[in-house]
Amino acid sequence: MAGFDLLKRLLVGRKLASTKLGETLLPKRIALPVFASDALSSVAYAPDEILITLSLAGVAAIGLSWPIALAVGVVMLIVVLSYRQTVHAYPSGGGDYEVATVNLGPNAGLTVASALLVDYVLTVAVSVSSGVQNARAMLPFIAGHEGMVAAGLIVVLMALNLRGVRESGTFFAVPTYAFMAAVLGMTAWGLVRIFGFGQQLRAPTADYDIVGSPDYTPFAGLAVVVLIARAFSSGCAALTGVEAISNGVPSFREPKSKNAATTLALLGGVSLSMLGGIILLANLTGLKLNDESGGSSFFYQGQPVEAKMDTAMGQLALTIFSDFPAGFYVVLTATTVILFLAANTAFNGFPVLASILAKDKFLPRALHTRGDRLAFSNGIIALAVAAVALVLAFNASVTALIQLYVVGVFVSFTVSQTGMMLHWTRHLAAQRDPRRRRAMMKARSINAVGLVCTGVVLVIVLVSKFTHGAYLAVLAMAAVFALMKWIRRHYDTVEREVAVVPSEANLLPSRIRAVIAVIDINKPTLRAVNYARATRASTIEAITVAVDPDEAAAMMAQWDADDIKVPLKVISSPYREVVGPFYDYVKGLRSENPRDVVAVYIPEYIVGHWWEQVLHNNTGLILKSRLNFLPGVMVTSVPYPLKSSKLAARRASRNTAAAWRRPGSGQVKVGMPRE
Amino acid sequence: MAGFDLLKRLLVGRKLASTKLGETLLPKRIALPVFASDALSSVAYAPDEILITLSLAGVAAIGLSWPIALAVGVVMLIVVLSYRQTVHAYPSGGGDYEVATVNLGPNAGLTVASALLVDYVLTVAVSVSSGVQNARAMLPFIAGHEGMVAAGLIVVLMALNLRGVRESGTFFAVPTYAFMAAVLGMTAWGLVRIFGFGQQLRAPTADYDIVGSPDYTPFAGLAVVVLIARAFSSGCAALTGVEAISNGVPSFREPKSKNAATTLALLGGVSLSMLGGIILLANLTGLKLNDESGGSSFFYQGQPVEAKMDTAMGQLALTIFSDFPAGFYVVLTATTVILFLAANTAFNGFPVLASILAKDKFLPRALHTRGDRLAFSNGIIALAVAAVALVLAFNASVTALIQLYVVGVFVSFTVSQTGMMLHWTRHLAAQRDPRRRRAMMKARSINAVGLVCTGVVLVIVLVSKFTHGAYLAVLAMAAVFALMKWIRRHYDTVEREVAVVPSEANLLPSRIRAVIAVIDINKPTLRAVNYARATRASTIEAITVAVDPDEAAAMMAQWDADDIKVPLKVISSPYREVVGPFYDYVKGLRSENPRDVVAVYIPEYIVGHWWEQVLHNNTGLILKSRLNFLPGVMVTSVPYPLKSSKLAARRASRNTAAAWRRPGSGQVKVGMPRE
Repeated sequence: MAGFDLLKRLLVGRKLASTKLGETLLPKRIALPVFASDALSSVAYAPDEILITLSLAGVAAIGLSWPIALAVGVVMLIVVLSYRQTVHAYPSGGGDYEVATVNLGPNAGLTVASALLVDYVLTVAVSVSSGVQNARAMLPFIAGHEGMVAAGLIVVLMALNLRGVRESGTFFAVPTYAFMAAVLGMTAWGLVRIFGFGQQLRAPTADYDIVGSPDYTPFAGLAVVVLIARAFSSGCAALTGVEAISNGVPSFREPKSKNAATTLALLGGVSLSMLGGIILLANLTGLKLNDESGGSSFFYQGQPVEAKMDTAMGQLALTIFSDFPAGFYVVLTATTVILFLAANTAFNGFPVLASILAKDKFLPRALHTRGDRLAFSNGIIALAVAAVALVLAFNASVTALIQLYVVGVFVSFTVSQTGMMLHWTRHLAAQRDPRRRRAMMKARSINAVGLVCTGVVLVIVLVSKFTHGAYLAVLAMAAVFALMKWIRRHYDTVEREVAVVPSEANLLPSRIRAVIAVIDINKPTLRAVNYARATRASTIEAITVAVDPDEAAAMMAQWDADDIKVPLKVISSPYREVVGPFYDYVKGLRSENPRDVVAVYIPEYIVGHWWEQVLHNNTGLILKSRLNFLPGVMVTSVPYPLKSSKLAARRASRNTAAAWRRPGSGQVKVGMPRE
Repeated sequence: MAGFDLLKRLLVGRKLASTKLGETLLPKRIALPVFASDALSSVAYAPDEILITLSLAGVAAIGLSWPIALAVGVVMLIVVLSYRQTVHAYPSGGGDYEVATVNLGPNAGLTVASALLVDYVLTVAVSVSSGVQNARAMLPFIAGHEGMVAAGLIVVLMALNLRGVRESGTFFAVPTYAFMAAVLGMTAWGLVRIFGFGQQLRAPTADYDIVGSPDYTPFAGLAVVVLIARAFSSGCAALTGVEAISNGVPSFREPKSKNAATTLALLGGVSLSMLGGIILLANLTGLKLNDESGGSSFFYQGQPVEAKMDTAMGQLALTIFSDFPAGFYVVLTATTVILFLAANTAFNGFPVLASILAKDKFLPRALHTRGDRLAFSNGIIALAVAAVALVLAFNASVTALIQLYVVGVFVSFTVSQTGMMLHWTRHLAAQRDPRRRRAMMKARSINAVGLVCTGVVLVIVLVSKFTHGAYLAVLAMAAVFALMKWIRRHYDTVEREVAVVPSEANLLPSRIRAVIAVIDINKPTLRAVNYARATRASTIEAITVAVDPDEAAAMMAQWDADDIKVPLKVISSPYREVVGPFYDYVKGLRSENPRDVVAVYIPEYIVGHWWEQVLHNNTGLILKSRLNFLPGVMVTSVPYPLKSSKLAARRASRNTAAAWRRPGSGQVKVGMPRE
């Protein structure tokens, strides 16, 4: 442990850097929009889905929308209270994955992780689809092309994230507060008009009749109970994103946990107000929605209505701002923007979760570290491809996609609440202070209520939606879970295989045989020769593959003339292959001397332009890629910078500095020299 | 020169291998089909294009088809005679490119090469398009989809060539002889029916009237002269491919030149007979063709005919084998197959020419050598992409594509004949033997006639077709020419830059500083450490990038415990980048010691399955690709084979043996040890 302490002492400055620099700590007024855009945006589609599901049972069922919204509100209240406990108990930002892993073991953690990964994909698909539906109210020409438009937008989001958007707090704050102001303002103005001025507000669909599905009419029996459960399940989409704050605790200002808990309460309050307001106004204005996939249809004066309806947000904005058309555009623009912002949040969250999973070896290790841009990009691309596939398969229908959604987040809620129960129980066993014990008991009972509530909702969601699409989400989660288990098993196997055996730790290879690949005789080749000579290998030889004898003879003569201090060997190649015979030669060398190491030196040009790569290094690159699969053969690239690369290098070093180095990185070096 | 002679002596066995193995020498009966499929296949479309061009001037002009065919025949005769001289004078197989380069200098050679490269693309496009048109006569559902079908077939050809079809002589012999037999048999049977049995044979289009283009009716004036010139130019497409035999002389049995010359004469004779036969029968049966792009249209009894007409070959087969329907299918199948074979020939010829040009540094050097499959594949893909673009742009219309064709081949003919003139003149100056002088004078006069003839045809082709599309071919040739000049200039610049300066040839770097990239402490890392130690570098250190301090501390402790003989340094990375800080460290090391070399050792797993690559080596690979652009930094991959790779390696070594090694390759090694 001496090394550990010394390191800690030496790393004091660094620790500060790790937590302070780069990620500025957020005041509550900025933290709310940063972490809440996902949660808030779901009020744009949750009310719609309640109304659409109920429409399957005809116009009479619409009246059930407010008790269902109330139930959703109660669940949200309980979930918010529960997560306030999590925020206090796990301030490190590991979120549900950490809670589940610590208290219930890796399989529970992995279950949560699978659920969340699948839900990130669905967040993108649902948010963008809903954004497109809201935009459709303003831009009618979108109608009929929703799938393609949504796919295109996801590709744009992907491109932005691949280029690396650096979001500031303001980036989130402006649209989030604009959305809150627009929706709450609309609600308030609507209530003032109705109750203050006593005006009669009628939604565009107020006079329509709904013909529901024959399965739910007459409006009675078990089928209708299931339908109400489904409407409630869809409404629970309003809860997605609540868990985001528990991942973000480290970004809050001190006192972190307290501020995070307050922000969570604020979020809950705002969400509830918006959801309640929309459902209330929908009931007051006679707003209706039908199922575009054909489950229910509108009739007006006995005639079927063919046109596609605006979203609830669109109809309300039109109705309430009938005297102020700009209001309609403000509300719908704010709604559309926040939905895209919510999708963008998933593009940030997915790679972060993947990074945590990679650290625990459930995903490729390369995802763990930043700076490995390639790997990070792969995560973004994977998310985008999956989301595009979904919106195209479901033609960007929120109603269809919502059947797959919510499962993941409630799996995560339920497992996490179970973990919190165990957490408090464990801590209670060790705690003697009666005041603290009381606080813990209280916290445990809150989490117990949370567990029961989210567990019941999970069952309701699964039962009511399973055959409507939830089974797909469950299958995807199971597949992700299995894949991650399998990756971890692979890494564990390899780790055992390559574990250090102390007795063999310092075994040197008996000899090093250096081989220089010669293509032309020039400065790069000589540099490779001289570097190889400087390593004082046991044997050293230059090898060239002769495609035609005259060329080989000329090369031999020049090698002589230049008085190079290493022998040149020629390998014949009657069929003008270069790589094959060289590979065979190196392989033969290795087979004859299995305890030796063969070190192959390949001269390489450093070029200044990409197109120069086409003209140089090709043979060397192919040689390298082939030799890299030979055990006992070290391949060394010996670089020779061409003039053209000098300018490019100067340019690149400027760009590199900006792109790769952040302040504080790599500055504090810790030396541990042992003689 | 001592080295040269020794080498030659040592290479005696190899020389045999180089010329004998792999490419078996061809008897004339096999050489004809191997080299003639391209030239013979052009009789499938040359007669059509003569008839179509004439149709623009209405039905009266059709009678001019036989004098035009006669003119084409005369040109073919002259070209064949000229090339018999080339075959004797340049038996090495360099073809027109060699003749032009040797006698007229590199720019002339490059002109020929540009012309031929462009013409290879057009050979693929025209042959496949014509193949599709002939297939259409048998498979009417192709009509309307010619462009897509042709593009698909080119992709299939590309795929076959990427996989590496090994053509045997038989592969060519069967369809080529079948085509010859089918066409000559059809001609003979047609003549027997008409003149022997006195039957009246009427082509399906015999009773149609043609309404030509208003530009050429009435049938008089300069416009019509130009039209006749255009018909002649299109007919000259029959000459493409004649030059192929001059590239193939080394493949003939001894006496090579004589056998090649005989084969050339045979090819000329067969081509002429087929072309003459088809035109003769077309005139006898009243066969007509119209311009599908709308230049001329068919009328029957005053009504326009909408249906697309079969090719001349299709109509003749239908007419002549009216009593024997199977004959129709035999002729058209043989025609279609030989056209695809001709396209396939271009897929072989293009990379070979590219290889010769690459040897002279006009194209990327990597194209020079076989076995560099990647490079060879790139040539095939480039050819296919260009040809697909053409058939899609011109909707696989032979009539449109033929306007671009022929220019290249006549540029090549004309330059090559000029070169031959200079060749004989030069040799005459040195020759005293009157008998030989006479032979040379005779050869020179043949080439003089050839030069005048091909030069005149080239002018006719350019003038009559320039605005109809030939300008595109000229532009493409100019672009290819400029690109090749530019590549050569680049290589020359680099060659001067990297030329060996003898005084610096044996300068050793002052010191080597070894750095081992440590990601985990395991056997692969220790192997890298021990290999680095074995090179006896001046300084040696292991470097790890610490993403979090606990991990780093644990690693330090393990490094201690395992008693590894090299110091471990930790670089801090507060933002979880690994590659960036490591790169900066190495760069700093190099900047502080500019005369030293930094040798970076990166442990790498050798894995057995492609998907394991996803799980391993990523950080190492990114590190490598970044460090490869740092001057003075050698990057060495130290491989560690995982168990999974052992089985795969055994499997791979079997496959590799088959795929990469051909008999004789790499077996004769030439050692030139100098102590």
